Amino acid sequence: MSVLIVGSTALDSIKTPTQENPKLLGGSASHAAVAASFFGPVKMVGVVGEDFPKKYVQLYKKHDIDLAGLQIKPGKTFHWSGEYEVNMNNRRTLLTELGVFETFSPELPKAYQSSPFVLLANIAPALQEHVLNQMQRPKFVVADTMDLWLNIALPDLIKLIKRVDGFVLNDSEAQQLTGEDNIFTALKKIHKIGPKYVIIKKGSHGSILSSPKGFFICPAYPLQSVVDPTGAGDSFVGGMMGYLASAKGSIDANIRRAMIHGSVVASFCCEGFGLNRTTKVTLAHVKQRVKELKQWTRF
Amino acid sequence: MSVLIVGSTALDSIKTPTQENPKLLGGSASHAAVAASFFGPVKMVGVVGEDFPKKYVQLYKKHDIDLAGLQIKPGKTFHWSGEYEVNMNNRRTLLTELGVFETFSPELPKAYQSSPFVLLANIAPALQEHVLNQMQRPKFVVADTMDLWLNIALPDLIKLIKRVDGFVLNDSEAQQLTGEDNIFTALKKIHKIGPKYVIIKKGSHGSILSSPKGFFICPAYPLQSVVDPTGAGDSFVGGMMGYLASAKGSIDANIRRAMIHGSVVASFCCEGFGLNRTTKVTLAHVKQRVKELKQWTRF
Repeated sequence: MSVLIVGSTALDSIKTPTQENPKLLGGSASHAAVAASFFGPVKMVGVVGEDFPKKYVQLYKKHDIDLAGLQIKPGKTFHWSGEYEVNMNNRRTLLTELGVFETFSPELPKAYQSSPFVLLANIAPALQEHVLNQMQRPKFVVADTMDLWLNIALPDLIKLIKRVDGFVLNDSEAQQLTGEDNIFTALKKIHKIGPKYVIIKKGSHGSILSSPKGFFICPAYPLQSVVDPTGAGDSFVGGMMGYLASAKGSIDANIRRAMIHGSVVASFCCEGFGLNRTTKVTLAHVKQRVKELKQWTRF
Repeated sequence: MSVLIVGSTALDSIKTPTQENPKLLGGSASHAAVAASFFGPVKMVGVVGEDFPKKYVQLYKKHDIDLAGLQIKPGKTFHWSGEYEVNMNNRRTLLTELGVFETFSPELPKAYQSSPFVLLANIAPALQEHVLNQMQRPKFVVADTMDLWLNIALPDLIKLIKRVDGFVLNDSEAQQLTGEDNIFTALKKIHKIGPKYVIIKKGSHGSILSSPKGFFICPAYPLQSVVDPTGAGDSFVGGMMGYLASAKGSIDANIRRAMIHGSVVASFCCEGFGLNRTTKVTLAHVKQRVKELKQWTRF
């Protein structure tokens, strides 16, 4: 089955202590869509400007991403620029040029509206909800977010969280949302808002799922070297939703393996700038790392 | 088989944001010995002063800990006092009174010298080596440490690490020792010093083993509430070595399950002040949490 992904489609200029890469393909929808494409068909919703490089359109197409929902508008593509410190957990934004994203209203082509799986990747919660309003009885809807929306659009975000099956956020966001230091107390509070499935991401420490079938402690794939972690969280949810959409059986039966696959795709994302590494690996590479994670966690 | 444990035996006065508990039973050897005692016989080496409460001697005995190696010297028992912030990862030492620990020289009773399993719990590396020098061909020797020894006794510590089978340290200590931010690069560098088994502890994020049979990503047991994390690391290595000493088969066949059991005992340690909670649970409680961790990590 196909997965519909809405989010940002951007150009990312990324500086690390050793390298600088201008105008890479980025944005939450780009990372999530490429990650999901390892497992099955993806329908993407987003907006780019007239300056959007053709090679990036080709890259989406190479990954069989359906672009019927990608709007091309007069103006400039959303451009984000950020700089990482030696400790890659510390990042600061140098520049945000919204461009055509400022007036973006995601409109779904008819063929998109019946997608059984929906990933509302990180964008403003009002836009995520606008997409949800256009869907016809999706089977499984997951929303991701970021601290910005907790700060400037909390009521919209709460309204959205009530309506989704799964909600994904990182540990500091969970603390900010619930006022709870402890992850497990935070998980309980988030369930009370609505979602049956809550996933808290902990970066290189992996992630935790709380679901009707209990917890799952999902490891991160151990990396010797992190080149650029931009998009790792988006790749994680994208890979997870792509796997879920392609798997037979219930969500409960598949979500753990889906998270492991997402975790592995995120590991590849970290090994190159932007999507450079993710777009060079194959499903066989992903399966190999899943196998390794299985070996490294059994007891 | 029995495990010999050397380390500190102390009185801990611990303050948290909500409670204050003076002169609890503490020290690396106390925590590790009680943790190991769930699984089999323990021989403890340490020193206390004449002020050491009889009830604590009774507590050791209740756990069948062999005290032939516990010296009682004129003077006062080692006393440590510390305070935790709301975020329990942040602790500051208020007071350290060495007492009889200042002139401690661990001497092994004859019956101890043939113990097949040896845990050099956290004390000065010169004392850890002094114990090792008295052993007759132990089967498996593991050393734990703390940042203090990296700061004031690094040459002694390196000398010790070269001689042990397993070395355990936390993530910030691994970074300090190797100059490497990345855990997996740090693990490689520590193997080069000597030990075949290196375990890096990451607190509530679990731990990582690097061994001849590859990695093991060991989860922490998820806790809703942490009362006092003092001694959690000691409980982890103590539980691990106690399990290993009692298990049939090779180290490689058992070390993952041993770490899981250590992780679970450490979780109980965190749920009460000092050893209050650990000394109230049974092996059945430990097994129940091991079972839960198995459910929460399978995929």
